[in-house]
Amino acid sequence: MTFGPQALDLFALPGLPLVRPGDDLAALVLEGYGRAARVPAAGDVVVLAQKIVSKAEGRLVDLADVSPSPAARELAAVVEKDPRFVELVLGESRRVVRARPGVLIVEHRLGFVMANAGIDRSNVEADGRELALLLPADPDASAAALRATLAARAGVELAVVINDSFGRAWRRGTMGIAVGAAGLAALVDRRGEPDLFGRPLQVTMIGHADEIAAAASLVMGQGDEGRPAAVLRGLAPTAPHGAARDLVRPEHEDLFR
Amino acid sequence: MTFGPQALDLFALPGLPLVRPGDDLAALVLEGYGRAARVPAAGDVVVLAQKIVSKAEGRLVDLADVSPSPAARELAAVVEKDPRFVELVLGESRRVVRARPGVLIVEHRLGFVMANAGIDRSNVEADGRELALLLPADPDASAAALRATLAARAGVELAVVINDSFGRAWRRGTMGIAVGAAGLAALVDRRGEPDLFGRPLQVTMIGHADEIAAAASLVMGQGDEGRPAAVLRGLAPTAPHGAARDLVRPEHEDLFR
Repeated sequence: MTFGPQALDLFALPGLPLVRPGDDLAALVLEGYGRAARVPAAGDVVVLAQKIVSKAEGRLVDLADVSPSPAARELAAVVEKDPRFVELVLGESRRVVRARPGVLIVEHRLGFVMANAGIDRSNVEADGRELALLLPADPDASAAALRATLAARAGVELAVVINDSFGRAWRRGTMGIAVGAAGLAALVDRRGEPDLFGRPLQVTMIGHADEIAAAASLVMGQGDEGRPAAVLRGLAPTAPHGAARDLVRPEHEDLFR
Repeated sequence: MTFGPQALDLFALPGLPLVRPGDDLAALVLEGYGRAARVPAAGDVVVLAQKIVSKAEGRLVDLADVSPSPAARELAAVVEKDPRFVELVLGESRRVVRARPGVLIVEHRLGFVMANAGIDRSNVEADGRELALLLPADPDASAAALRATLAARAGVELAVVINDSFGRAWRRGTMGIAVGAAGLAALVDRRGEPDLFGRPLQVTMIGHADEIAAAASLVMGQGDEGRPAAVLRGLAPTAPHGAARDLVRPEHEDLFR
């Protein structure tokens, strides 16, 4: 069996406007295809930055509206962050994994082990207010809904991945990681397949959607580029489909939580 | 400032033969370009699987030649692995990070926190012998040497990344990670750059070579594909160049070792 294509084409969807709560992301994606002088093709993987999905879903919180609990105040003193921000982080988390000055790593309610529960204070429109942007309530569901809308409007089956920049244990620098996915296998299980010599493969579970998320980051940029959407063409995902939640290691398998 | 291209082209170099100790990898890469009906272009990033670099460098060890120490025997009983294999792992490691039945995670002498010190027993030619394949002695140096040879023969400046599949804390499935790099910034430092609204970026260090390594994995496959080399075209890396060692988090910054 062969897995994966021999060539891929990766392009940003340029010129997306600043996304606001209630915006129609599918429409913005299809306009982006047009600006890239492309037409949606069956099997395209559309990758969206978490940021624009969260903004479209209205996941913005005004810090002025947040009253930090005593626990949040105490933790804020340890990590040297705004107690209102820490309150938001705790509200999105199952537990604190590491807390040090400048560092707050939590287990997000969706299982992601990440800094600040993925709450973002950069690239959020300010207009005087101090806003924070939470992850989507259910990014796999967001990906699935967007996928359905894109399929209906474009007339082709696409996959959707929502990515975010994650820090890693042991490695410097962030990497694009999948927080939502629909229409593809997020985790590819190759257990039992032979290697070139018929010996069972040692590496048998592949974080496929994470590799897609990382690849897309190469054309999406991080800062003032305003390129929060990209397409990976040529993967042609096949069933069975999964979701980004498949990539979360269950606690009982995890040696580093 | 904008960072990164708007589009990338990613293709495997097909039909590489099984690599043997002493093989000329640069020649194999250039033949692979030919079979892909491509010509090397300035700015190409050539990504090679660690496996073929190690094989070309003769990093194969016959387990029959390994005498496990008492410490290796003891650890082998804990992790339920061949004591000779564990002896090799310990010889390549600074320390054991986690040991459980079936799991041996170490800090490799190059700083990588990884399973089995990256020593591979799959896709290694057997011919009756039980062989293990170690990481290259100095994968950044391997990448730099290959880059120089490719530049001399192809007449264009390329970058080289050597990738391997790593497991991750907290996430299921492996992901392509850079163990060697030359001719590009492995770690991109964007500290001090503004976001869209002039606020300093929150995410400021990007594991650029890891994202490249992951992207390339999408066309390289893992098992019986025999596609251990790929090219990412369009990144056009600029100076200053770094090395994969830049991506290793120093112990004093690390909260999970």
